[in-house]
Amino acid sequence: MAVLLGLVILSIYLFRGKTPQQESSGLGRSMSAFITVAAFLLGALCSGIAGYVGMWVSVRANVRVSSAARRSAREALQIAVRAGGFSALVVVGMAVVGIAILYATFYVLLGVDSPGAMKVTDLPLLLVGYGFGASFVALFAQLGGGIYTKAADVGADLVGKVEQGIPEDDPRNPAVIADLVGDNVGDCAARGADLFESIAAEIISAMILGGTMAQRCKLEDPSGFILFPLVVHSFDLVISSIGIFSIRNTYDSGVLGAVEDPMSILQKGYSVTIVLAVLTFGLSTRWMLYTEQAPSAWLNFALCGLVGIMTAYVFVWITKYYTDYKHEPVRMLALSSSTGHGTNIIAGVSLGLESTALPVLVISIAIVSAYWLGHTSGLVDESGNPTGGLFGTAVATMGMLSTAAYVLTMDMFGPIADNAGGIVEMSQQPESVREITDVLDAVGNTTKATTKGFAIGSAALASFLLFSAYMDEVATFAHVPFNQVDIAIPEVFVGGLLGSMLIFLFSAWACSAVGRTAQEVVKEVRRQFIERPGIMDYKEKPDYGRCVSIVASASLREMIKPGALAIISPIVVGLVFRVLGYYTGHPLLGAKVVAAMLMFATVSGILMALFLNTAGGAWDNAKKYIETGALGGKGSDSHKAAVTGDTVGDPFKDTAGPSLHVLIKMLATITLVMAPIFL
Amino acid sequence: MAVLLGLVILSIYLFRGKTPQQESSGLGRSMSAFITVAAFLLGALCSGIAGYVGMWVSVRANVRVSSAARRSAREALQIAVRAGGFSALVVVGMAVVGIAILYATFYVLLGVDSPGAMKVTDLPLLLVGYGFGASFVALFAQLGGGIYTKAADVGADLVGKVEQGIPEDDPRNPAVIADLVGDNVGDCAARGADLFESIAAEIISAMILGGTMAQRCKLEDPSGFILFPLVVHSFDLVISSIGIFSIRNTYDSGVLGAVEDPMSILQKGYSVTIVLAVLTFGLSTRWMLYTEQAPSAWLNFALCGLVGIMTAYVFVWITKYYTDYKHEPVRMLALSSSTGHGTNIIAGVSLGLESTALPVLVISIAIVSAYWLGHTSGLVDESGNPTGGLFGTAVATMGMLSTAAYVLTMDMFGPIADNAGGIVEMSQQPESVREITDVLDAVGNTTKATTKGFAIGSAALASFLLFSAYMDEVATFAHVPFNQVDIAIPEVFVGGLLGSMLIFLFSAWACSAVGRTAQEVVKEVRRQFIERPGIMDYKEKPDYGRCVSIVASASLREMIKPGALAIISPIVVGLVFRVLGYYTGHPLLGAKVVAAMLMFATVSGILMALFLNTAGGAWDNAKKYIETGALGGKGSDSHKAAVTGDTVGDPFKDTAGPSLHVLIKMLATITLVMAPIFL
Repeated sequence: MAVLLGLVILSIYLFRGKTPQQESSGLGRSMSAFITVAAFLLGALCSGIAGYVGMWVSVRANVRVSSAARRSAREALQIAVRAGGFSALVVVGMAVVGIAILYATFYVLLGVDSPGAMKVTDLPLLLVGYGFGASFVALFAQLGGGIYTKAADVGADLVGKVEQGIPEDDPRNPAVIADLVGDNVGDCAARGADLFESIAAEIISAMILGGTMAQRCKLEDPSGFILFPLVVHSFDLVISSIGIFSIRNTYDSGVLGAVEDPMSILQKGYSVTIVLAVLTFGLSTRWMLYTEQAPSAWLNFALCGLVGIMTAYVFVWITKYYTDYKHEPVRMLALSSSTGHGTNIIAGVSLGLESTALPVLVISIAIVSAYWLGHTSGLVDESGNPTGGLFGTAVATMGMLSTAAYVLTMDMFGPIADNAGGIVEMSQQPESVREITDVLDAVGNTTKATTKGFAIGSAALASFLLFSAYMDEVATFAHVPFNQVDIAIPEVFVGGLLGSMLIFLFSAWACSAVGRTAQEVVKEVRRQFIERPGIMDYKEKPDYGRCVSIVASASLREMIKPGALAIISPIVVGLVFRVLGYYTGHPLLGAKVVAAMLMFATVSGILMALFLNTAGGAWDNAKKYIETGALGGKGSDSHKAAVTGDTVGDPFKDTAGPSLHVLIKMLATITLVMAPIFL
Repeated sequence: MAVLLGLVILSIYLFRGKTPQQESSGLGRSMSAFITVAAFLLGALCSGIAGYVGMWVSVRANVRVSSAARRSAREALQIAVRAGGFSALVVVGMAVVGIAILYATFYVLLGVDSPGAMKVTDLPLLLVGYGFGASFVALFAQLGGGIYTKAADVGADLVGKVEQGIPEDDPRNPAVIADLVGDNVGDCAARGADLFESIAAEIISAMILGGTMAQRCKLEDPSGFILFPLVVHSFDLVISSIGIFSIRNTYDSGVLGAVEDPMSILQKGYSVTIVLAVLTFGLSTRWMLYTEQAPSAWLNFALCGLVGIMTAYVFVWITKYYTDYKHEPVRMLALSSSTGHGTNIIAGVSLGLESTALPVLVISIAIVSAYWLGHTSGLVDESGNPTGGLFGTAVATMGMLSTAAYVLTMDMFGPIADNAGGIVEMSQQPESVREITDVLDAVGNTTKATTKGFAIGSAALASFLLFSAYMDEVATFAHVPFNQVDIAIPEVFVGGLLGSMLIFLFSAWACSAVGRTAQEVVKEVRRQFIERPGIMDYKEKPDYGRCVSIVASASLREMIKPGALAIISPIVVGLVFRVLGYYTGHPLLGAKVVAAMLMFATVSGILMALFLNTAGGAWDNAKKYIETGALGGKGSDSHKAAVTGDTVGDPFKDTAGPSLHVLIKMLATITLVMAPIFL
């Protein structure tokens, strides 16, 4: 955290110089810099708290779930879901409340809408610092957490399972505590920060777009369009709570025991939430977005929301299809393990690459159809041009995220169940208890994978919004229309090339960071086994603490290189091309090149993240499928090949992939905040 | 080839409908369609001949090289280089002569520059069909050849080396002939078609850009700018021949025997060629590009050429750094094999992803600097705006390709040496002979990898040119300026998303095609070993023919899916968005979306190809490094892990990667030819 704080302070000073253009809104230079910095710090703080709460709850829930598992599977499930739900609600709540407080403070502080002061439609632009703060913490949480969890996992397995032949989560393994801690850090804290940031970024960009649109259309009361995102997410809190508590009802109504599939119970809760989401979304569009200028606009926007909700649903379904071993792709992957390690990897890579196609088609259809629904909503600017298109896309994103709290609950549930299983194993409970937690763990794996699909889909939409907000902001600062990024200009093309390259390089560094950290864990565990031979027959206690601290310090160290790359490269590219544009008489070149960089990085990032997440998830489940006894079962050559695939998939799906979600959003928020220095 | 011809005829009919707009140049509808089809067929034919010659020469050279290896290493090297050089000169010569003949024919046939007929500056646009024909054949040659060679290779190794424990290229393996044939098909024929197409596409796009520029600048004699590319490549033939024959001189001067490193001999020849290239390039710019309007323009263009030549050199160097085991990256990769299959794959993937960074930086600098050199050349249009920028990039591409024949020679040399080794092994010659061919084979591996770096670099530049030519063409057809592709429009963004996705999906299908075909080979080889037990003790001859025909038919079948994807998807996307644009009142939407698709596909394709080629090459050489005795040597666990990496790398580097080179150029030529239907 010290490293983080140092970087925070540094970036604050980077800010100070370059938000002066906001004077045009009636703000002083120092006031505007102060506001951005304050928003940044608040965003970072909230994101940190969200992550911390997720971890705190999860650590406490683990023990309760493992003891509940001794009584009944249903009780264990319920406790895990409730605990996950609590964290999820806190995360979403923090995002909504944080932005609401910030908005209200600025509103009062700056005397918005009083004569001579700034207009309410300009207010959302002041919130971008909050989004950047959230992205900033999320990036490091996801990157550091991802490196932590997978380095500990791979390191513990390589020595424990492979070399010593002791089971997973065995208390004799010195890295076992680091592994369990890693699950909490990497999954609960990091995914919490990730979705916190998605929601925050999406709320802010939707507010900016709503404000811009309201201004263009000269609506009498723009506040409905600006505050709409906050309302949607407040409803999210309510309906997701209902969804979570609906699981209790099932529990009360029948005492079926361990037989029922926990996945279907979770799915039922999700269906309840989806139905409620459609209803409340319709209500809130009617309430907030009704305007006399375009009486039927709210209906179009309600349909946009429906597009978003459906996109979320389809994304979750596609991810499940490609990563669940009930379906063809993972079975084919498992089959290819039977001809060796090499064919398993080739098949997994092909599967991952192929799995990008459907989500891209879905997101393409969603963007285009939401845009046209918004475009034809009847909202027009002074000269009669339709202006609602982008806001339509924003509403679709809100629709997609309108069940975020429930999806996050399902995600948080995974590591809690996983760790409960670890505790059961370590405390050497009877086999039947472990079986219950194993079932919950397997369900958790699937929900984790689907949440990633959900997260990347919403990241794609949020980035597109942030990109539009960036264009708006540049136009505001530069006092010229800035509504096109022309990729036929060589420099802009180069910007795109660099943006895509950034994604490849970032993924490379994230993966190799896991590899290096895991090597350190391997060395430490080997050393302990050699120096304390009593560990194996329980006579000596392994030094768990050393492994934890080695992984912690290594992951903090390793995350600096990719993290710095993500933060520094857009700034460097923007400045270099700003200078180049200055000398070659090309105005706004820096801003254009950064826009192209952002756009290409977003596209490549979405595809790369889909590839990494799906390939990783598929490898994991192909291994699990073989472990159910198919193709020779545990210990066979197929299983060994499948384990190789799983090892390769670990840094893909839990370090590089999820970090890319955050990266593409962070690139968007960083360019948004830094826009003034590229002009 | 029957499949190919069928597709050719089909696409001819696709054409007929949609080149009528060329009437504006004084051409009839049917005349223009006829010209495009004729150019397409000629391009396809020349590309086919180029590939066929490469294969024909290589097959004959193999035997001579293997018998020369019995006498001396130097003689074997010389024969292999001469044979490769002959094919390379034929390939480059075909490209130059084909375009020259086409140009001259059109010139005479259409009475260019006579009153009322078309202007000479419009003539190059008629040649685009030739480029598409070349791309078309190259795509299928590369894809089919790549699947063929790797399926045979992997299939032969999986049963022969792994299951039966017989050496590589052993005559008892029923798939050995298929493997050797595959080397010729995949490397000689396919790479020949690939570079043929690069050169053809680059010449045509440079001619279009030269013509457009000459027209804008109202030069009195534009023919110098239009014909310049042909002159450069004619010089290429001369200087590369000198480079190739310089290797003979070394042979005459000293009789050192097998000790000298063949790599350094090849490098010396390359240096000779590079120096000559710089000289002749300077001369030809002075000769062809001198114009009184801008007396110093030729000097700027000469510098652009120098940028290109340097880029080629740096690209070759970077590829060598990442794939040669004398350097750090491959050694680290080999080291990571010592902790298992999984860590080897993770390290290789990271290495491949990371290796995209430097080439992208180099190509970015090359594009921007060549553009600015051209921009400041002093060539201005009527209103005084500098216009030479894009032509500068074109000249840089010519510079890069100005040593193409020599580079292609080094590439062709590889499979000839490889196959000579196979013949030596099969005819059971003494060990010393095999050692000589092994050294040549190892050198061939490095030159093959570097040629790929060269090919992707030139593909990147050529695609950027073709993209500009596409913009010019759309503007010509639509009679409105078309010089921007605005990625802030949602549909255009979606086009980009689809373009990048196309690359991922194509790579997935190319890799899995190899996997499936290899499975068939494995089954056939296993069947023969079971049904004819006499094979193993040389009592029975295996049925080589069946393996050859299985691989041939399977690779023809498997290449249809990815090939069709490449050809159909840009057309479908263009048409869908044309229709969408029509209904939503958005003019030129189809053309814009296709432009974005092309651009994003190019960027993603460059990165993906770099990743696949480099990772594959590095895995191959990490295995070779371990086989030299490092880290436990042959048979150790590290070696087994390295073999897994090599197997994974095979389809990466020899099927998917090189096919992507062709794919990105084919997307560019297909959109160029099909442009009229997107309007």
